Amino acid sequence: MRLFLMSLVLGTALTAPLAAQTPGRADLAKVVASRHDTTVKALQDWIALPTIAAEKRNVEQGADYMRRLALDAGFQQARVVQSGGVPGVFATLDAGAPVTLGIYFMYDVKQFDPAEWSSPPLEGRLVDRPGEGQVIMGRGAVNQKGPEMAFLAALHAFKASGRKLPVNLVLVAEGEEEIASPNFPTIVADPQVAAALKKTVGVFIPAAGQDQTGQAGITLGAKGAVEFQLIVGGETSDKYPKNDVHSSNHARIESPAWRLVKALDTLVADDGHTPAIDGFMDNVKPLTARQKELIAQRVAVTNEADVKKSLGVGKWIGNEDFQTSSERFLSQPTVNIQGLVSGYTGVGGKTVLPGRAEAKLEFRLVPDMTRQEVETKLKAHLAKRGFDDVKVVVSGGYGPNQTDENSPFIQAQKKVLDRAAIPYTLSPRNAGSWPGVVFNGAPLNLPTGQFGIGRGNGAHAPNEWFVIRSANPKVAGIDEATMLFVDYLYEVAKLGRK
Amino acid sequence: MRLFLMSLVLGTALTAPLAAQTPGRADLAKVVASRHDTTVKALQDWIALPTIAAEKRNVEQGADYMRRLALDAGFQQARVVQSGGVPGVFATLDAGAPVTLGIYFMYDVKQFDPAEWSSPPLEGRLVDRPGEGQVIMGRGAVNQKGPEMAFLAALHAFKASGRKLPVNLVLVAEGEEEIASPNFPTIVADPQVAAALKKTVGVFIPAAGQDQTGQAGITLGAKGAVEFQLIVGGETSDKYPKNDVHSSNHARIESPAWRLVKALDTLVADDGHTPAIDGFMDNVKPLTARQKELIAQRVAVTNEADVKKSLGVGKWIGNEDFQTSSERFLSQPTVNIQGLVSGYTGVGGKTVLPGRAEAKLEFRLVPDMTRQEVETKLKAHLAKRGFDDVKVVVSGGYGPNQTDENSPFIQAQKKVLDRAAIPYTLSPRNAGSWPGVVFNGAPLNLPTGQFGIGRGNGAHAPNEWFVIRSANPKVAGIDEATMLFVDYLYEVAKLGRK
Repeated sequence: MRLFLMSLVLGTALTAPLAAQTPGRADLAKVVASRHDTTVKALQDWIALPTIAAEKRNVEQGADYMRRLALDAGFQQARVVQSGGVPGVFATLDAGAPVTLGIYFMYDVKQFDPAEWSSPPLEGRLVDRPGEGQVIMGRGAVNQKGPEMAFLAALHAFKASGRKLPVNLVLVAEGEEEIASPNFPTIVADPQVAAALKKTVGVFIPAAGQDQTGQAGITLGAKGAVEFQLIVGGETSDKYPKNDVHSSNHARIESPAWRLVKALDTLVADDGHTPAIDGFMDNVKPLTARQKELIAQRVAVTNEADVKKSLGVGKWIGNEDFQTSSERFLSQPTVNIQGLVSGYTGVGGKTVLPGRAEAKLEFRLVPDMTRQEVETKLKAHLAKRGFDDVKVVVSGGYGPNQTDENSPFIQAQKKVLDRAAIPYTLSPRNAGSWPGVVFNGAPLNLPTGQFGIGRGNGAHAPNEWFVIRSANPKVAGIDEATMLFVDYLYEVAKLGRK
Repeated sequence: MRLFLMSLVLGTALTAPLAAQTPGRADLAKVVASRHDTTVKALQDWIALPTIAAEKRNVEQGADYMRRLALDAGFQQARVVQSGGVPGVFATLDAGAPVTLGIYFMYDVKQFDPAEWSSPPLEGRLVDRPGEGQVIMGRGAVNQKGPEMAFLAALHAFKASGRKLPVNLVLVAEGEEEIASPNFPTIVADPQVAAALKKTVGVFIPAAGQDQTGQAGITLGAKGAVEFQLIVGGETSDKYPKNDVHSSNHARIESPAWRLVKALDTLVADDGHTPAIDGFMDNVKPLTARQKELIAQRVAVTNEADVKKSLGVGKWIGNEDFQTSSERFLSQPTVNIQGLVSGYTGVGGKTVLPGRAEAKLEFRLVPDMTRQEVETKLKAHLAKRGFDDVKVVVSGGYGPNQTDENSPFIQAQKKVLDRAAIPYTLSPRNAGSWPGVVFNGAPLNLPTGQFGIGRGNGAHAPNEWFVIRSANPKVAGIDEATMLFVDYLYEVAKLGRK
């Protein structure tokens, strides 16, 4: 595998299966290698400009930067699309090809606390990570700027070598993925954007899909997500104090914190995880035999102990075995508490009756649930129980997406990995979420997916990283990841031949 | 009343009833007036050194400062008493008198956030407060350094004028009142402290008991308080992640936040306020007819709308009338949530499954509940329901105290107020708490109370204040409050005559 990965760049005989399908592969690989430092510098520059929707940070700047990244990579037109929130970016690259491929980018990143990081989260420092190699450490490194930059580097390679792309591209980028894409439907509904997407064979988001053994994955869908807050307090009813008051007053004044607890308690069963919102589970599709088989294949090549260790847990829900737990992981919708905040939150105690209590919650949805459905059901559930003093603020969300493994779009991904002899599993679904439903659902009904090799970790956590030069011969660095995108573009181009 | 209050200082004819009982009153009042700036400066200096037990701030310094304050005021001996927590201070002043009075001081203050204050909380600035006069604004101003400094100023007046105190004094001070006095029993159990207290006729804490109409109050007891935290997470069970992880994992990993909600939910009834811990209400004594009568007297002279406004609420629990609500206020024990903290607590949402969830709670206890009883019942309640993964951390607490209104100790307070023509109500109980049970309960069984005139507000809140020079002729400033303590010392001295 080391020879193979080296060969991606060096163009040795071992790349013959790829080279046969990717015209000029050796030349392109040389360009990618020669542009390595430029690519890394471009990624560092991008990491230095974090767009964080929750904090309204670098909103216009982030969109404009995304627009310029697209133009630099060879898109002939790119424009900022206003949406009422953080703007989107729409770009097209017309190569005069018969096939058009859709690309989805998120240019925003998750919040971060520099105090929790071992290197400054906006510097994108290159550091050695034992067992992994040289990695770039910074917010957005793997989620999702690193893989996206690897894709842009593929386009730069075409541009620098004067080669025409084998496919046309439509890029739609958003800056609110991390707050559950509240305005992305508006961006995609833009008449020009919708018309351009309609011509695509499918839409994918560049991803770094390899685990530490080099195993890659093709995911056939993702859960949907809805983020919302429940708020109780002086702002929702005059039963509660407007501010924190001395706690002795709870003997005569209602507590927003208790009210929140009582409302929350109705949302999940006493087991602490099964959703209990009226009708919430009605449209949950059970896994098919094939989906369970795909999960079993993945389980067979995954070290359960490593997964538990990386998550810091000793057991799964119900102490289930790995297969059962993995089926649960991909098949079950969730009602999760992201955070609780009320009254005094410092060290020890403080004798106050809080004036406000807030729970930050999130649904994860599976087929055939929809965002609108669960929002309506949540509100009806609370109303039925008289929680009219509990304010529901939905900050964003979207439904699940699912693509058939036999679709030509997915088959092309499989062919590229097969040809590169990269082991991979098909996953029926990603337990995480991305707003693929905007492409996958009506009216576009396009295949969607996350695709790519390379590796990283720490999304949403401190010390997020993405492999630049891999020490593990089975894992791709950024240049190898770039070359696989090149191969993929040629493979997608073949879809027009049928 | 203006004439009266001025006369406290000026010694006019109107103070005749007081002067007749307080030898040398006019001279003492002159000394108090001449020491006014010194007293205020001493209060400001004390405010500048906040002891905050929850933050372990100024622990040794605060105790030593308290010791020096006592010595400066004329106590012949004062020593720091180690307790395992923030130390206490024990001081005695032997005047060779037949009667000994016990004094309780708290020298600690509540936490504060300077950003919430209109003037720096440690500067004790003198500011004009419309309708009140000149007030000192700072953390601890009214709770409890201001009233305590007024008492010390009375001792300074004796010392400065070369007069002997009419009573002996035993002072016991603690620095952990704001965390529910976890180690105060240890301090009081010190053999020297216990022996000294045993000789007292009762123990009181100086207080600023006047409302804005000048109405004072004698309280015959106080609720007890127990502060504790419920903690669930990776630190309590390997079912939960050790740190926050990506929220998609809730589909296969239990949530400490939900577990906390489920545990909390069992602690109060669905009405959001009635304690539901097994056996919690067993020893709750109903109010007597006399206690209800006392409440009615207070209700009759209190503007309900003002109280609601100051608390920022539109209605009491159950939309009850003021009498019913006031009876509830003083008679009902509570299970209060002081704070909730779990996972992401910033703006909007963040897709994490928290690794930890904590509820900060507090009981308020009424006779005949005890601290040990409720702690035992809470733990049994949780254990019975299988919440063995919910850690209970009791950070402090004590039971309620209650003193008979016919005790000579209370009668002396009434006589002083009567003689000064200050209107007052007898309150059967303070809904707040102070550890009077340490004196009031076995083995000392002493009368206890909070006593004093003067006025302030904002305890436990930003912009805490205490009146220095009152613009309201019916309300005492610090010097008038001091003089009432002088009168009280002479009245207490008479208890030895019987």
